[in-house]
Amino acid sequence: MSRGFLLVLSGPSGAGKGTVSKELIQRNEDIVFSISATTRDKRPGEQDGVNYYFMDEETFDAKANAGEFLEYAHVHNDKYATPKEFVMNKVAEGEIVLLEIDVQGALQIKKNYKNAVFMFLLPPSMTELKRRIEGRQTETEEEIELRYSNAFKELDFVNEYDYFVVNDTVEQAVLDMEAIIRAEKHRVKRFKYIKERVIGEKNV
Amino acid sequence: MSRGFLLVLSGPSGAGKGTVSKELIQRNEDIVFSISATTRDKRPGEQDGVNYYFMDEETFDAKANAGEFLEYAHVHNDKYATPKEFVMNKVAEGEIVLLEIDVQGALQIKKNYKNAVFMFLLPPSMTELKRRIEGRQTETEEEIELRYSNAFKELDFVNEYDYFVVNDTVEQAVLDMEAIIRAEKHRVKRFKYIKERVIGEKNV
Repeated sequence: MSRGFLLVLSGPSGAGKGTVSKELIQRNEDIVFSISATTRDKRPGEQDGVNYYFMDEETFDAKANAGEFLEYAHVHNDKYATPKEFVMNKVAEGEIVLLEIDVQGALQIKKNYKNAVFMFLLPPSMTELKRRIEGRQTETEEEIELRYSNAFKELDFVNEYDYFVVNDTVEQAVLDMEAIIRAEKHRVKRFKYIKERVIGEKNV
Repeated sequence: MSRGFLLVLSGPSGAGKGTVSKELIQRNEDIVFSISATTRDKRPGEQDGVNYYFMDEETFDAKANAGEFLEYAHVHNDKYATPKEFVMNKVAEGEIVLLEIDVQGALQIKKNYKNAVFMFLLPPSMTELKRRIEGRQTETEEEIELRYSNAFKELDFVNEYDYFVVNDTVEQAVLDMEAIIRAEKHRVKRFKYIKERVIGEKNV
């Protein structure tokens, strides 16, 4: 008996969400990335339903109004959202749906969807975070400063999450996340018929 | 940064609480058994403060009235209790205190101590449970029937717990418990100063 759930992962820029997520998905067959909806143009090589669900603004807004998104956001001229249906279907199949998202999006999801698990990835220290942001060498001094001060603010939201994981090394962070996922699969609150299953009345 | 906590383990007779607990403690240096208080006589080889805290009934009752026990119970002519001080001290030192206890005791603790983690050990099936109870060969037919029907009743309480673990094999059950413990060490609610620790203002 195992149940799927939505796993929300946030954390400041430079904490390493992308790296640990990829590693986590590579190692675990029952974890999949959430596929977002977006109004932005499809880029060469991108596939609808694989990279994103691409849609025009009218469709997007209609879905938003119909409550079909767990959260949505306006970024520059484009809109992004987490479609409820994809998450629900995968969860019903027993999968863990991993969603990397900022704290504002996570708070929207927390309001709309009680069964999600909220995980916050932390850098081991701010010095190390700065080193990682600078290490990318793709950003200007100002962009680096902005990311750093945003990271500082985002840390205020850690108390809204269920778990924190410190990304000291990727290996240890992924092991921590795997333990959290294994634990969450054993949460009594996710199962209605534990006794019935043990006594053989239900195959759940 | 790691925090201790009280880990309450219940489950029907025959589920295998003793076996998995011993294995868990043997493998993990930061897990210790809770030491109970009792009014029963000390048996040869038993040591005060190791096997039990032995005390006379007057002392026991005074402590019970003073709120020094997380739970207590009257079993035949003897009284047993979980002293709060031992648990608190060990938890403050960052240890996991493991307490094997019946559902009634667990419910008392749940009322008195919010930070405990409640785990319920299940047999894979009632057929297997019966096989295990019978396998002991130390009990009469009636005792076996009593244990079996008590197990049946105890399963009603699984919904009061945080986690369930199915003891199909000891190895897998212990790994599940270790994952739950590792996850609980990353619970945001156990830490007041996560941001402060990351930004280096507090060494917590």
